[in-house]
Amino acid sequence: MNRSQLTRYFLRVRKVSEDICAPLEVEDYVIQPIMDVSPPKWHLGHTSWFYEALFLDKLIPDYSAYHPDYAFVFNSYYESFGTRIQRDSRGTLSRPSVEETMQFRAAITEQMCELIETIDEAKWPEFRKHVILALNHEQQHQELLLTDIKFIFATNPLRPAYLAAGSEPAVYRNPLPDQRYLNFPGGVYEIGYQGEGFYYDNERPVHKQYVHDFKLANRLVTNGEYRDFVEAGGYRDFRYWLSDGWETVKREGWQAPLYWEKIDGEWYEFTLRGLQKLDAEAPVCHVSYFEADAFAHWSGKRLPTEAEWEVAARAAGLQPEGGNFYDRKHFHPRPLGDDLRRKPEPLHQMLGDVWEWTRSAYLPYHGYRQVEGPLGEYNGKFMINQMVLRGGSCATSADHTRITYRNFFQTDKRWQFKGIRLAEDG
Amino acid sequence: MNRSQLTRYFLRVRKVSEDICAPLEVEDYVIQPIMDVSPPKWHLGHTSWFYEALFLDKLIPDYSAYHPDYAFVFNSYYESFGTRIQRDSRGTLSRPSVEETMQFRAAITEQMCELIETIDEAKWPEFRKHVILALNHEQQHQELLLTDIKFIFATNPLRPAYLAAGSEPAVYRNPLPDQRYLNFPGGVYEIGYQGEGFYYDNERPVHKQYVHDFKLANRLVTNGEYRDFVEAGGYRDFRYWLSDGWETVKREGWQAPLYWEKIDGEWYEFTLRGLQKLDAEAPVCHVSYFEADAFAHWSGKRLPTEAEWEVAARAAGLQPEGGNFYDRKHFHPRPLGDDLRRKPEPLHQMLGDVWEWTRSAYLPYHGYRQVEGPLGEYNGKFMINQMVLRGGSCATSADHTRITYRNFFQTDKRWQFKGIRLAEDG
Amino acid sequence: MNRSQLTRYFLRVRKVSEDICAPLEVEDYVIQPIMDVSPPKWHLGHTSWFYEALFLDKLIPDYSAYHPDYAFVFNSYYESFGTRIQRDSRGTLSRPSVEETMQFRAAITEQMCELIETIDEAKWPEFRKHVILALNHEQQHQELLLTDIKFIFATNPLRPAYLAAGSEPAVYRNPLPDQRYLNFPGGVYEIGYQGEGFYYDNERPVHKQYVHDFKLANRLVTNGEYRDFVEAGGYRDFRYWLSDGWETVKREGWQAPLYWEKIDGEWYEFTLRGLQKLDAEAPVCHVSYFEADAFAHWSGKRLPTEAEWEVAARAAGLQPEGGNFYDRKHFHPRPLGDDLRRKPEPLHQMLGDVWEWTRSAYLPYHGYRQVEGPLGEYNGKFMINQMVLRGGSCATSADHTRITYRNFFQTDKRWQFKGIRLAEDG
Amino acid sequence: MNRSQLTRYFLRVRKVSEDICAPLEVEDYVIQPIMDVSPPKWHLGHTSWFYEALFLDKLIPDYSAYHPDYAFVFNSYYESFGTRIQRDSRGTLSRPSVEETMQFRAAITEQMCELIETIDEAKWPEFRKHVILALNHEQQHQELLLTDIKFIFATNPLRPAYLAAGSEPAVYRNPLPDQRYLNFPGGVYEIGYQGEGFYYDNERPVHKQYVHDFKLANRLVTNGEYRDFVEAGGYRDFRYWLSDGWETVKREGWQAPLYWEKIDGEWYEFTLRGLQKLDAEAPVCHVSYFEADAFAHWSGKRLPTEAEWEVAARAAGLQPEGGNFYDRKHFHPRPLGDDLRRKPEPLHQMLGDVWEWTRSAYLPYHGYRQVEGPLGEYNGKFMINQMVLRGGSCATSADHTRITYRNFFQTDKRWQFKGIRLAEDG
Repeated sequence: MNRSQLTRYFLRVRKVSEDICAPLEVEDYVIQPIMDVSPPKWHLGHTSWFYEALFLDKLIPDYSAYHPDYAFVFNSYYESFGTRIQRDSRGTLSRPSVEETMQFRAAITEQMCELIETIDEAKWPEFRKHVILALNHEQQHQELLLTDIKFIFATNPLRPAYLAAGSEPAVYRNPLPDQRYLNFPGGVYEIGYQGEGFYYDNERPVHKQYVHDFKLANRLVTNGEYRDFVEAGGYRDFRYWLSDGWETVKREGWQAPLYWEKIDGEWYEFTLRGLQKLDAEAPVCHVSYFEADAFAHWSGKRLPTEAEWEVAARAAGLQPEGGNFYDRKHFHPRPLGDDLRRKPEPLHQMLGDVWEWTRSAYLPYHGYRQVEGPLGEYNGKFMINQMVLRGGSCATSADHTRITYRNFFQTDKRWQFKGIRLAEDG
Repeated sequence: MNRSQLTRYFLRVRKVSEDICAPLEVEDYVIQPIMDVSPPKWHLGHTSWFYEALFLDKLIPDYSAYHPDYAFVFNSYYESFGTRIQRDSRGTLSRPSVEETMQFRAAITEQMCELIETIDEAKWPEFRKHVILALNHEQQHQELLLTDIKFIFATNPLRPAYLAAGSEPAVYRNPLPDQRYLNFPGGVYEIGYQGEGFYYDNERPVHKQYVHDFKLANRLVTNGEYRDFVEAGGYRDFRYWLSDGWETVKREGWQAPLYWEKIDGEWYEFTLRGLQKLDAEAPVCHVSYFEADAFAHWSGKRLPTEAEWEVAARAAGLQPEGGNFYDRKHFHPRPLGDDLRRKPEPLHQMLGDVWEWTRSAYLPYHGYRQVEGPLGEYNGKFMINQMVLRGGSCATSADHTRITYRNFFQTDKRWQFKGIRLAEDG
Repeated sequence: MNRSQLTRYFLRVRKVSEDICAPLEVEDYVIQPIMDVSPPKWHLGHTSWFYEALFLDKLIPDYSAYHPDYAFVFNSYYESFGTRIQRDSRGTLSRPSVEETMQFRAAITEQMCELIETIDEAKWPEFRKHVILALNHEQQHQELLLTDIKFIFATNPLRPAYLAAGSEPAVYRNPLPDQRYLNFPGGVYEIGYQGEGFYYDNERPVHKQYVHDFKLANRLVTNGEYRDFVEAGGYRDFRYWLSDGWETVKREGWQAPLYWEKIDGEWYEFTLRGLQKLDAEAPVCHVSYFEADAFAHWSGKRLPTEAEWEVAARAAGLQPEGGNFYDRKHFHPRPLGDDLRRKPEPLHQMLGDVWEWTRSAYLPYHGYRQVEGPLGEYNGKFMINQMVLRGGSCATSADHTRITYRNFFQTDKRWQFKGIRLAEDG
Repeated sequence: MNRSQLTRYFLRVRKVSEDICAPLEVEDYVIQPIMDVSPPKWHLGHTSWFYEALFLDKLIPDYSAYHPDYAFVFNSYYESFGTRIQRDSRGTLSRPSVEETMQFRAAITEQMCELIETIDEAKWPEFRKHVILALNHEQQHQELLLTDIKFIFATNPLRPAYLAAGSEPAVYRNPLPDQRYLNFPGGVYEIGYQGEGFYYDNERPVHKQYVHDFKLANRLVTNGEYRDFVEAGGYRDFRYWLSDGWETVKREGWQAPLYWEKIDGEWYEFTLRGLQKLDAEAPVCHVSYFEADAFAHWSGKRLPTEAEWEVAARAAGLQPEGGNFYDRKHFHPRPLGDDLRRKPEPLHQMLGDVWEWTRSAYLPYHGYRQVEGPLGEYNGKFMINQMVLRGGSCATSADHTRITYRNFFQTDKRWQFKGIRLAEDG
């Protein structure tokens, strides 16, 4: 990627953050209903500060910060960059205003473009590599923007819609195929990113893992299938749940996935296009690891490991193109029937729609070393007490995912687009 | 007060709420940094819903609510009016937007004006009485708007100023008079509101209290005097503090009044006109009851009772006119020197500047009966575990206060304009 | 009181603490089920350390502490005596053992007796005064021992009984007299302790208060009367409750007084003699201020002020003798019928049975000054956010009470023997 | 194992629980200073109830519970056996008394012995298998008894000693060997228990794992080595810590391992024989996963995986005999020099002394299925958010451990005997 290509890529990614926020009112930008959910304004500022801290401040002589307090306000968790506002206090700040934040964005964008053009050739290779990382970082925040906006709207009793109902692209629906289990042979596999493009350090080193024979479901678990679990009393029977999961169910009063609501005996689901009748054929989403695991237990199956998932995806030669990602503007997982026109492969919905919980803990690959400095805080320090998800979702950009991509969340988190694919021993 | 007078009064009060918010950015309207501090938008909506619930809904046949969810969103604590959002969640709502809330205000204002003109003569007397109560209610929220805005700005690391420094009215400063103690004779006094105008039910019945001979300080405690307490180690010595107060000091890490800040060895104070050097002659403000009591203890004095305060104020024939109230647009307590041109009386700063903590618990007067229905929830149900304050502040409207006015807060609250006047036994 | 009288008084009081603990198993001495309830062992140690800190350590040259860590372990809240174990951690200590604590008691008792005999005549008057205070302090802890033991036993699912059911003294029961209201004339009264005996500093100075004409119920509210409130839905209707009270009812899930239990449609009450059928004629007990106030509100009455209570008690010439105090070993309030043989007065049950909530905040009397030093921490620093109770209970020693005695508790506390007497305006 | 052998084994294990408690005072049995630490009495009761619930109640016709409330009081977390006391309330119960609990133990022991003798031959094989499981369960609680007693004594300011200092077996100390890294070759290994004896279900199925070449330290990390980390500022530098670990360090104020204490510039350690000078050559213990990982990070090494640990232990042909287990009555990890007389092998201290943290999450082995019924609650439901430890400790019985044994704890727990062995990639 040369300088002008990087500039175009940079501008394209920057624009997506702004596109996502375009439907918002000013008030929507400042709310933090729970600690996990940041104000959209904060995401916009944070993804600008990130370039300032990593590039402008380091590479431009005598650079003076755009604003002396923005590092405090917009730093997320980088101890290397000093003190910062407590995570649960991001929603206590009305200033900088949305407009000031947008001006900050514009200023950073402009200076970054200039830096891309002018940086010394000697520094170019590493600079380019880190800019691409920073753009992937911004893309992660774009997914968070969508899921945080959804949460903000869902907790409001007025139930505003992010987009008008009916504005989604037309789809043609085929019948839902039965769930089937595809066989994959065991053996020693190489796991991890092997290409030439961008990858996160947590996808490397490529290393060997022994994978036993296994079977993987040809498609995601649907709302209808999950509803059977709910209505069979799954949320009232400890036997299906991990101990911590059962404590969570009781403490939080969970009775169904996040955003499900029963009105006059019928199930509805809050979406980015407002409250809608639950589509029994669409993939279930917004479930925690605890719920995914309990559903698998109730079903007599299990979740796949991340290695199994990767082996299957590689065997099927999957590519992100065509998946239900951000780019398709559905902003919700789609019933498999919608996709069948496009994808004849036996293994459906692996990429896009929902992140798929695996039963693998998020831990370093064999040989992984955390890099020194701020970028070492990016991934390595979170490698504990989280589980891996694979595949990307309807809120992920298509060019931000890979079959080796390791997403990770704590086991009780539900506000991302997360779903379930079942597996069995082979 | 006839119909057109009430209309003018009504419109005048309504306008003040909007005037107070005029300097805000949209983002400032939605923040709730702590439970006590509501988003300005919420105050604007709440003070509109209040008329709808009390008048429009009750008196207009087939009245249909402006919006079906606003009662839930804008009810504060009226159990009589049904369920409502939890108090600490007011800052989780981006909608209704500020503009929608303003439209709601305008619609309510218009319908109320029409109702004032058209209501049946038979219902007029009680209606008028309750409208005046509701306007006083809105005036209370105007004071809260100012103190909540101050808190919102103060917690922001960017430290925005509500009004530009230097925008305050010019004042001519005389030397600060010494603190002197004025004598008041004891005896059986009638306490409570005796006039013909508006009063809250908690100011009645007029009843007898025995008051001992007492002495009351001629002016408020100043920042300079309070700073002596701070610098003498007052916040590190348990001996001056009530037990609950000492626990609070340790738990909250209090070292000075709210909004005081020591920078390079010098004390500053955050005001509605930004951070300013501490004015040693201005009255201390933003102290809790615990701090007021500890300061009095350290000084070898005590706080006055509310009866003493009322007896002294009545003896001095004080009137709100001329006091440093909202109307004077200082938005901060003023040094006594500023007032001396206008007020030759020996007893200074009783009305306006800061609410003065008394050592009286907020309890019903002899013979008090809580009224039935929602208005019974206005005052009576809070008569426990709070202390009475008297006199109004620089954030109170001059026509909203009286010498019999009983304000009340929990003993640890500091975000109102609250100060200290000392007393002694006679 | 001369030296040998003081010795006898001292030994008599010390013995009561041990008598109260005699029925306990070792294990019962170490439990702290909630912060308010201290382990019995702690009370025994604390009331010994108190003499050591106040007398032995101050008056015996070169006195060396019985154990270097006991001041830390057994200090309650005396900042003057240095750091101490956190209040909620008293139940984390298995050592000193019960036996070691008893040895500590015995050693302190012996040294105190010696000191009483030998102290210099010049120091005798103040010493005697303070020893009597310290004995009253121990008597307060004797009441706490009984109520804490009751709580410890009540929270145990095995429901052990402190004393065997049926072990109470025989009583002859007359019919319950109707509740009547006795009239008392208003005027300026002298309030506070006026005798020559022992009193706490908070009962002084004697000072004037204006008391309006009032009526006071001739007896306590009974379980039967309170049950009517419970069964009329009193705990489900916000209208009777102070706002803080209603929050407490909801948060704690209160449905009846502490220790009431409904089994197969019938009400039971846990007592120091185990679970017993609710006696409809016995006074209701273990109610918080919130409940007492709500019951009065529901009844169309109010609670008396502490001045009214004192005026009435003085008018009736009441004496503690004969009341249902600790000395009678009932350990539970008795139906009025039981007392009628002994007390023909019209105003019943004022002394003993249960502490009676008044609507008076616990604040200093006019002219009150906190003394310097540790004894200044005894009463004065608690004069905030508590309400006054009067009259003593079945767990109070008869020689520990007076009609001027001011007990005080926070408004949500229920584990003491606290009940209700109603009043009306005159 | 035939019936009389099982009886002897049963009686031997039962006795150990009682031996462990023999040095305690009655008071020590009832304390629960933090939720993790149960009262010793509870362990004694729980390990008796366990046999009653699993065997007596199921296998003896018309069996009636020893006490109707003991199931509630002594059930730990078995949902299958109904409601039970909240985990953090075990320390609120003074009854059943220690003596009653001992009588319960004796009664259960007797009935179990009888059942072992008399149970129907048809049921014998499964019964024997489950009794052996239940005995291993009791052995786990024996380890908890020792670590809970240690915590109870350590939190007491009197610092009682469980055993007298100097009562440990005499040891001969050789010089501490240098830390060296032993090489192990990679490949596909069979992991899991392959013998004929007892194992927990989580050690099975035997399954393949690919293990890369690795190096394992020949001995445990010592106090001296860990002290270097502490004194180099390891607890003040975020760079070495996982993000959750760093939050824990700050929140809990950790500055060194649990039980370390700096007195006059010298490090001490609280042990089951009281406070002792830190032995620089003894293995560090009472560290959390976070601390073990941070130390490894600071050292430029890593923790081993559980597979690596098992591969190395199997390669070395290790046997529990001779290790520093409960049986040797040291009750504290020993310097390696002490062992050298006995163990010439190159890989030291693998078994006994301290549990060794691995970097492996506690998750099911390939093919693992949770069994139905109460025994399914034993291990499977905890397979989330915990890390595996290997090797047993000085508080583990020698006949309770195996090289395939998987112990597991949350990453912030420190009160067990847990230490560190470092590894490197090969």
